[in-house]
This record gives sequence, structure tokens and C-alpha cells, in this order.
Amino acid sequence: MSELIIWTYDWVPEGPRGFVRDLRLRWACEEGGLAYSVRTVPFDGRETNHLSRQPFGQIPFLNDGELEIFESGAGLLHLARKSEKLMPNDPVGEAETVQWTIAALNSIEMVTVPWWFLEVTGEKHNGLTDWMGNRLDRLEKALSEREWLAADRFTVADLLMADVLRVSKVRAFGDRPATDAYLIRVLDRPTFKKACADQFAHFAAADMSRSAASP
Amino acid sequence: MSELIIWTYDWVPEGPRGFVRDLRLRWACEEGGLAYSVRTVPFDGRETNHLSRQPFGQIPFLNDGELEIFESGAGLLHLARKSEKLMPNDPVGEAETVQWTIAALNSIEMVTVPWWFLEVTGEKHNGLTDWMGNRLDRLEKALSEREWLAADRFTVADLLMADVLRVSKVRAFGDRPATDAYLIRVLDRPTFKKACADQFAHFAAADMSRSAASP
Repeated sequence: MSELIIWTYDWVPEGPRGFVRDLRLRWACEEGGLAYSVRTVPFDGRETNHLSRQPFGQIPFLNDGELEIFESGAGLLHLARKSEKLMPNDPVGEAETVQWTIAALNSIEMVTVPWWFLEVTGEKHNGLTDWMGNRLDRLEKALSEREWLAADRFTVADLLMADVLRVSKVRAFGDRPATDAYLIRVLDRPTFKKACADQFAHFAAADMSRSAASP
Repeated sequence: MSELIIWTYDWVPEGPRGFVRDLRLRWACEEGGLAYSVRTVPFDGRETNHLSRQPFGQIPFLNDGELEIFESGAGLLHLARKSEKLMPNDPVGEAETVQWTIAALNSIEMVTVPWWFLEVTGEKHNGLTDWMGNRLDRLEKALSEREWLAADRFTVADLLMADVLRVSKVRAFGDRPATDAYLIRVLDRPTFKKACADQFAHFAAADMSRSAASP
């Protein structure tokens, strides 16, 4: 089997640690029992220094032998096809898993990330807040009727949806008990805790290199 | 082969015609040479009348035998696996197609749809405008270096990206000649024109039923 390599930044400031999206791929590899290593591109100059590998200047991207795949969602779907622990390989289970993975990317994150973005910049956006509330209410209804999004078991769709919800801090945004319980259930997995700890350790090690390199 | 059924609304007002997302699935079936039929759920009461089939109350969704798949992006990936005309079946071509399909959903549409949404509501959103400009500049660079997004040929990723860009009317948003030429190239395909005409005809036929039903 070819070696999986997850690419991330060599360093980031403290604020985004625990939220950098290489975490999604680390977590998926941990869940799937897939061996991987982590390599880096420089954070300094990231806007342009790896555009040939990631056209939007972002991370992560993933190597699997001759393949190089950007977009964390695409990387997750690729990993999911390598491990039945991430996605069932029967047609119904696979279709459910893919549709909820896309729902996390395009029905939830498409609203939560712009909402968070405008929160940070302090701009008014009442319409976006109402829209997000509506989407989260729909998700709350779905989660009140099931323990996992797809196939009656944990899949990569839960991994991604939980990460999307976690990042946007929606737990502070209205009372949605089924969503709260779901997030606690998913984020309690040891594989998430390991991926998160590994990301913190990766960037903390870089702090030491950076301060050693300073005069 | 099981029958493909694309589900959309029975009717929509004139404004969204030509932009309702069943068009993506119609277009993909036309490109892939896949036989399909179209069925409907009522537009009136759409917020709640089909939540058991689409948890966000949206359309389209797709039937393929025992499978039912919501999220237009998931439907496209499903159709792409049924026709090599939509996605190459070699690993590199497939990985490139999936990553650019996800990029359309999560790097471009995640910015363009909220931008368009706040434009419609008339709210200020300078941060979002700058963010969208940056993403579209990156895409312009990528499109200046290639004719098609993936695998040196038309794929479902082009179908989706062109639809995302078309809907958000980004041609009016800055001078990006490679993106303009790309959009003209993709939207000139007879399969797009047929899917678009079929959608207009579908809703126009519903106008007649609705007026016949009026007193």
C-alpha cells in the first residue's frame, strides 16, 4: 500500500490551533487505521508559495502514491474509500455517507463559515443569521431522529459534520439539544482527541524551532 | 439498469427558472447519456412537505433503483460514477475530478452564494466581497493555465463550477478573462442548453395547470 502523506503548514499562530483542517484528515486516518505521515509547506508566504499544489493557497492536501488531492472534503472521500470503518461499501450505505458529507460541506458549512467570517469582521448580517438558524433547526430535527447521520453507524460524514459544527461554535447559538448531544458523542472519540493533540504538538514543536532560529 | 428519477418542484415563480438545481442533474444525465425521468414535490409547503426525503426542504434529489440521494453535489458524484463521459475512471482522473467538484461546492460556492444572498437582502458585507474577489482571482489564475479543471477534458467538475459561477453572476464582478472564456466554453454545450430549455418547459407547463385550476 502506498504511503499517505498529509500536508499542512509548518507553523500557525496559537488562535487557529486545534482548528486547522489537516485535523480532518488526521482524524480520518486514525479512524480508518490508515498509516500516514505529516509534511509541511511554509506558513510564511502561504498565499502564493504552494499555488501549484493547492490553487487557493490553502491546506491540507493529501498524497497517496501518485495521487495528490486538495480540498479536505475530497481528501475525506478518498480516505473513506480505503477503509470500511469510514464508509460502508454497500451501495445504500455509501450513498447515504456521501450525501451527508456533501451536506456538511454545502448545506451547513456554506452558511456557518460566512456567518463566522462576518462575526469576526464585526459586520452586520441579519439575513445570514436567520439563514443559519433555519439550517441548524433542520439539522436539529434530523439529529433528533437518529444517532448518526448515515447508515446507522459512525461514518466520515459524522467526522466532517462534527468538525464543521465545532469550528463554528454553534453550541453558543440557540438551544439545540440533539445537536449538542451529537457533538459530544462524536467529539468524545479517542481518534478525535489524538488527532487534535497531534496537531497541537506539531505546531508547538514549530514554536521551539522558530524561537531557536531567532537571534 | 435501474431508472433514474430526478425530483424537483412542480412549479416555481419565473425568477428562479433556469437556476433551480435540478438543472445540474438534468445536465449531467444529458452529458452522460443516462436515461432519466423527472417527478415533482409541491412548491407550496416545500419548507416541510418533503423533509423525510430532503432534511433541508430543498430539491433536487435523485432516485436510482433502491437509492435516494439528496444534495445536488452528491447526486452529481453518483451520476459521474455511472458514465465515463462525466468522470474518467482512472485513479488520477477521478481524484482530480472529485477534488474540483468539491472545490466548486466548498471553495467557490461557499463564498458566492452567501455574497449573492446578502446582495439580495441589501445588507453590507465588505469582508465577504473581498473574500469572494480573492477566491475568484485564484480561480482565474487556475483557469488561465488550463482549458478544463480536471484531467484535460470536460468533466462533471466543469459542469458544476460553471453552474456555480453562472448563478452568482460573477461575470459582472471584475475583469477575469480566463473565467469568462471558460464559462462561455462550458455553457455553449448543447447538453446545457437542452437541460435549461427542459427546465423552462417543465415550469411553463405548470403555469398552465395552475391557471386552469384557478376559478
